[in-house]
Amino acid sequence: MSNKDLVLEIPYGTRDFLPREAAEKRAIEGKIAETFKRWGYDEVATPTIEFLDTLTMGNGSNLESKMFKLFDKENRTMALRYEMTTPIARVVASRLVDDLLPYKLSYISSVFRYEKTQTGRQCEFHQAGVELIGSSKATADAEVIALAVSIMQEAGLKDFQICLGQVEFINGLMQQCCILPKQQEQIKQAIESRDLVALNAIVDNTELPEAAKAMVKQLPLLHGDRKVLYKAYNMAMNEQSRRALDNLTEIYELLEAYGVAQYITFDLGVIRDFSYYSGMVFEAYTPGLGYPLCGGGRYDHMLTDFGRALPATGFAVGIERILLSLERQGLAKPAIAKNVYVAYVPGKQQEAIKLVQDLRNQGKTCELAMSACLELEADAYRQEKGYKELVFIK
Amino acid sequence: MSNKDLVLEIPYGTRDFLPREAAEKRAIEGKIAETFKRWGYDEVATPTIEFLDTLTMGNGSNLESKMFKLFDKENRTMALRYEMTTPIARVVASRLVDDLLPYKLSYISSVFRYEKTQTGRQCEFHQAGVELIGSSKATADAEVIALAVSIMQEAGLKDFQICLGQVEFINGLMQQCCILPKQQEQIKQAIESRDLVALNAIVDNTELPEAAKAMVKQLPLLHGDRKVLYKAYNMAMNEQSRRALDNLTEIYELLEAYGVAQYITFDLGVIRDFSYYSGMVFEAYTPGLGYPLCGGGRYDHMLTDFGRALPATGFAVGIERILLSLERQGLAKPAIAKNVYVAYVPGKQQEAIKLVQDLRNQGKTCELAMSACLELEADAYRQEKGYKELVFIK
Repeated sequence: MSNKDLVLEIPYGTRDFLPREAAEKRAIEGKIAETFKRWGYDEVATPTIEFLDTLTMGNGSNLESKMFKLFDKENRTMALRYEMTTPIARVVASRLVDDLLPYKLSYISSVFRYEKTQTGRQCEFHQAGVELIGSSKATADAEVIALAVSIMQEAGLKDFQICLGQVEFINGLMQQCCILPKQQEQIKQAIESRDLVALNAIVDNTELPEAAKAMVKQLPLLHGDRKVLYKAYNMAMNEQSRRALDNLTEIYELLEAYGVAQYITFDLGVIRDFSYYSGMVFEAYTPGLGYPLCGGGRYDHMLTDFGRALPATGFAVGIERILLSLERQGLAKPAIAKNVYVAYVPGKQQEAIKLVQDLRNQGKTCELAMSACLELEADAYRQEKGYKELVFIK
Repeated sequence: MSNKDLVLEIPYGTRDFLPREAAEKRAIEGKIAETFKRWGYDEVATPTIEFLDTLTMGNGSNLESKMFKLFDKENRTMALRYEMTTPIARVVASRLVDDLLPYKLSYISSVFRYEKTQTGRQCEFHQAGVELIGSSKATADAEVIALAVSIMQEAGLKDFQICLGQVEFINGLMQQCCILPKQQEQIKQAIESRDLVALNAIVDNTELPEAAKAMVKQLPLLHGDRKVLYKAYNMAMNEQSRRALDNLTEIYELLEAYGVAQYITFDLGVIRDFSYYSGMVFEAYTPGLGYPLCGGGRYDHMLTDFGRALPATGFAVGIERILLSLERQGLAKPAIAKNVYVAYVPGKQQEAIKLVQDLRNQGKTCELAMSACLELEADAYRQEKGYKELVFIK
């Protein structure tokens, strides 16, 4: 490869948004920002770079190897933000201390993860999301789920499903079965990755009584409509698991009031890949995309790590995944209307400038030819660039 | 400092945008995107991280020390983008080769410079700009200047001035005076930093004839209305300088047709701090801000370095500088209207949810209380959060 080719390359897992893609991205982000505002969520923006200690405080140091790291002039380790929940926790703990609770905050932001790229997710990708901080009520959880539904609807998606779980149900069940912490981790990983073979092998390898083994093996199968909750109530012998199910029941009834219960599927095997979740968790799926579009949940302990003990819940949706889903489902909107291309013969340039300015003042999208040309040439250009009308000044 | 305080810190030269600031930023960026679209400029977005070789190909390796560097898994050096002209040159040379010329491209993007922070400019800041690629005409230069004026007007600024120069005028003059390359650099630096004392010292140190010395010393004084051009024509003995002045004259006449000539001040001492400029250059200033808001110019050689010889012109405007100017000039818009805060007594939660959804469907900005409360409490919260109306369901 010549040096010329090298300078034209971009790093692994990054991409350019060419005009059509960038226009779609801006349009979707605009609609999302509008929806967040209508629901009373205030946007915040944080730096692209944070200290590594800040990011690992929220995410745990096991994610450190997936972070893009760099160093400041004093050799302190920094990293590109991995997600937005942690930076917002930092903002809440350091900058918003005098404001009345709860905080309803939103963001639309790039995030960076050094990992194998997935469908609709590069190493640099874009997320929109909210954090509802300072309320431990089911109302808060129901609000963020209903808002996630609204975001997907506003983005233009018609067909999607929300899988709703509760991490405390599984935690309670494992406690009830006296499973050792190390085995708990293995079991959770197998459930999270939907690896039933691995799950069975791990469970069979434990000293658990047969009844407990059967119960743990059933966890990934607790998936479906409201009846799943009744089944789960029969399994839940301890307070922790039962409270988790009561919480899901309350959230579901509120979602009925929001008129979005038809999007909800219970899935008690949803755990999510962030260690900070402590209650309700959910993921949204749409046909033709093998990964969740959107995910979130309650995280009541992260803010404590930042020195401000506040309960919190929220979600993030992947912008690229929405764009990809719309495209795959044939729902992508055509590019923005381009109205007029203004071209001219020699000597008519100033007249053309005055006309094009008038048209723009009327709100029209117009392009001006950079030099005099033939009408035929002008029309070919107009067509190629997608302008509806040619005004040719002779 | 405790560990807790450390994780609440952010790196030097970065900042958080709290709700009011983030809302202003989004509003300004929305208006700018709208204006770019109306002028026929298509947005593109490029990765935050590029290979160092790509960035220095455009910017020159002398800027390398100001870049935030990091390494990929193969130990290739990458850096956070320093400005957007170079990444867009890369896109044009690698991705848009089949499209009809000219390209009219725009961006709104964060950029990163590891240097002492300035008024309205942190190490991470945001720029909006355009690149008009494939036209060497004065029409192209006039269009980007007129668009810069339009952007500043749309952003809400009333009082600003564009200082317009031409790097080939100075280059021609130096050639005419037979100034050595090394001295040319020193002279340009002194002119760029408006350091008349240094300029005089450098010039006095040369072997130049007295007439040439006097001419160079006058360069930073060539500042004012159209009469400055007549004065400059008298100094320009060679073709290169005269062509530069002809080019400025032509651009000015086109700007008269655009109706924006009243914003233009000629300033033949404007050079700009990027080495890639090769023709017209400009900077926009507004009262109360000691740095340019906006700057740009023609760069006809950069694309050649990327393997595609195309003339180009463009500009970038600093988003934070616009926000700061609006604030200092008392032109900042009040925060977005928040319509209704909906609260309720115990048992009325579901009714409240239905009402708040109705209001949002009518396009109103509404917040729902997270738990039942007293009307007095609800009204205090409403007031603090800036909602106009309280609806209290009893």
